Amino acid sequence: MNTPRVVVAPDSFKGSLSAAEVAARIADGVHAARPDAVVTSLPMADGGEGTLETLLAAWGVTPREIDTVDAIGRPRRARWATSPDGRTGVVELAEASGLPHVSDVPLQPLHASTRGTGAVARAVLDAGVEEVLVCLGGSASTDGGAGILTGLGARLVDDDGADVPDGGEGLARVARIDLDALHPRAREVRWRLAVDVTNPLIGEHGAAHVFGHQKGASDGEAAYLDEALRRWADVLERQTGVRTHDTPGAGAAGGVPSGLVSVLGAETEQGALLVAQAIGLPEALADADLVFTGEGSFDSQSVRGKVADGIARLAAAAPAKPPVVVVAGQVLLPAPLTWEAGIAAAFSIAPGPVELDDLLHRTPARLTDLAAQVAHLSLPPAPHL
Amino acid sequence: MNTPRVVVAPDSFKGSLSAAEVAARIADGVHAARPDAVVTSLPMADGGEGTLETLLAAWGVTPREIDTVDAIGRPRRARWATSPDGRTGVVELAEASGLPHVSDVPLQPLHASTRGTGAVARAVLDAGVEEVLVCLGGSASTDGGAGILTGLGARLVDDDGADVPDGGEGLARVARIDLDALHPRAREVRWRLAVDVTNPLIGEHGAAHVFGHQKGASDGEAAYLDEALRRWADVLERQTGVRTHDTPGAGAAGGVPSGLVSVLGAETEQGALLVAQAIGLPEALADADLVFTGEGSFDSQSVRGKVADGIARLAAAAPAKPPVVVVAGQVLLPAPLTWEAGIAAAFSIAPGPVELDDLLHRTPARLTDLAAQVAHLSLPPAPHL
Repeated sequence: MNTPRVVVAPDSFKGSLSAAEVAARIADGVHAARPDAVVTSLPMADGGEGTLETLLAAWGVTPREIDTVDAIGRPRRARWATSPDGRTGVVELAEASGLPHVSDVPLQPLHASTRGTGAVARAVLDAGVEEVLVCLGGSASTDGGAGILTGLGARLVDDDGADVPDGGEGLARVARIDLDALHPRAREVRWRLAVDVTNPLIGEHGAAHVFGHQKGASDGEAAYLDEALRRWADVLERQTGVRTHDTPGAGAAGGVPSGLVSVLGAETEQGALLVAQAIGLPEALADADLVFTGEGSFDSQSVRGKVADGIARLAAAAPAKPPVVVVAGQVLLPAPLTWEAGIAAAFSIAPGPVELDDLLHRTPARLTDLAAQVAHLSLPPAPHL
Repeated sequence: MNTPRVVVAPDSFKGSLSAAEVAARIADGVHAARPDAVVTSLPMADGGEGTLETLLAAWGVTPREIDTVDAIGRPRRARWATSPDGRTGVVELAEASGLPHVSDVPLQPLHASTRGTGAVARAVLDAGVEEVLVCLGGSASTDGGAGILTGLGARLVDDDGADVPDGGEGLARVARIDLDALHPRAREVRWRLAVDVTNPLIGEHGAAHVFGHQKGASDGEAAYLDEALRRWADVLERQTGVRTHDTPGAGAAGGVPSGLVSVLGAETEQGALLVAQAIGLPEALADADLVFTGEGSFDSQSVRGKVADGIARLAAAAPAKPPVVVVAGQVLLPAPLTWEAGIAAAFSIAPGPVELDDLLHRTPARLTDLAAQVAHLSLPPAPHL
């Protein structure tokens, strides 16, 4: 090896630095250690909130926008994107249906829906894409994806054939889904759902019981929503033959995968892997000598479907099997569990005893120094040294 | 490389863990990463206080003891050692003449002397050694080594031929040194002085002005002692032809090198290098693949004659030129200055934002984890993986 090839693919440091800023500081460190290194910076995301931004940057495209509604039906402008080749569309659920947009009023856990995202999805289909990446996470609703389907032209009706209301309260009454007016391309494209949880749709680990409370649901409302989701899954299974009651990850974003998997044939995927593929990470890893990833806190969650886990899986599958090093604000996972996850080593940017505020302030400089130390240790010395 | 060879040669983490404990925890980490690694643990010291303990452990010998006096003439028992082959004797100045032993009473900066260490040196010579390692540092005195020489039989006399008193106040009156009764072996053996400072004997950076205050000297007393050391160096130069006024390191331990270099032909050496040689570190480094060193705080002082600097110099001189990694409680030296010192990388054991007390408590576990991460990253995977 003469010119070392280094891939830098961190997540953001939440509350501190964007993934792009983290990547830039790591790249600075690599170049300090090895000025001749070829550094490929591919800021990552886990498929949840912020993923659209990551893909926009990676693809170098400007976002498209549409007037739609938020989770409780108020006007809202939402961004979406298509890949440079126009074949892939990106819908980020939180753009229209995100919880932060409705937290200015009392939360409406039974009424909130993903209908606004359905309008975004319709625009994406109209753009002629062949596949749609749906970034889940951050939703205000627990509607099993019914809002997206109604936004695409489906009708949810009760025993009397009348439209049910939006949100979980509608699912509690739904008897049938009418797909006659579904967008003509809705079942022609490939739907890929980026999920970062493995929770099932219903039950104690399901969408309502685990995530309902943060969306404003009381215990009773969570139970009501859980039962509504069960009814919805029953209806879907009866009409499509696809059972989503126990599908891992179907509990993401208030159960969105349930409706989209059953009706649209959507696939759920590990969000980080989906993003990595979308930004060309596997290709960049093919001849890499060293890979950096990172996030604010590296802990047991990190190796369960988050960015670090996705990077480790892809690096292990790459021909050169480059070592993956995590740099993080804090490292809580013991070394043996780190290795089990396919990560060569994880280091904290903390230079010693330090307070959180101080460390946050020094994060950019510390990232550069730590990456420099790691690169200097890992990469062979330059020929002229 | 099949079986990786790792050398672990840390200094102590002052106020926290001994060098032996630090080495043990690092070795644990290396073995966690590579159970097949051959780890050679050689706990280090910088030639100052604690060096005797390090050599005792490295050599597997029990200390010898002698009844002598402390820096102000009170009875004190002091330890010394000989190497397993009996050829090398070790005298640690702080054993008899250390500052902590006399800090129970008001300090006597003008009177304190190294005479007690002279008695130890006499015992070492009587044991038949061929060389004497003198570990400086931690002294209570500013006597230019006159006490050691008088302990070995020399007489310091004034213009009237009368013995001058011990300590700096004697140097202020000394006119001549009478070596007639000097121990017969004193000038036959090789004297090696372990120093970890480069201060000259006299002047603003000299023994009295820089270190006098911590030994209790007022500004006026420091000036008096500086002038006394100058007179002493003049006398020594006149009688031996050896000038020590400007010798780097002659200001160590209240000017001890001055007397011993002039009268005994002693050599001053970088303490860490001297210790490393005494415990066989160069031999261990010859076929090492990776070297760990460490200390509580890794900063600009560390690479100026301390343990990390000594290890880096020896590793650079070893045939395999193994990379040296520093693990420390805190890392204050930027990466580029670390590399300039011949150290491949330095990492803190801090796992993230953490308070000092908490980090001290967790130091053993953190050392193991950090060493494991570094070894896993640096050493090639075991063949069966």
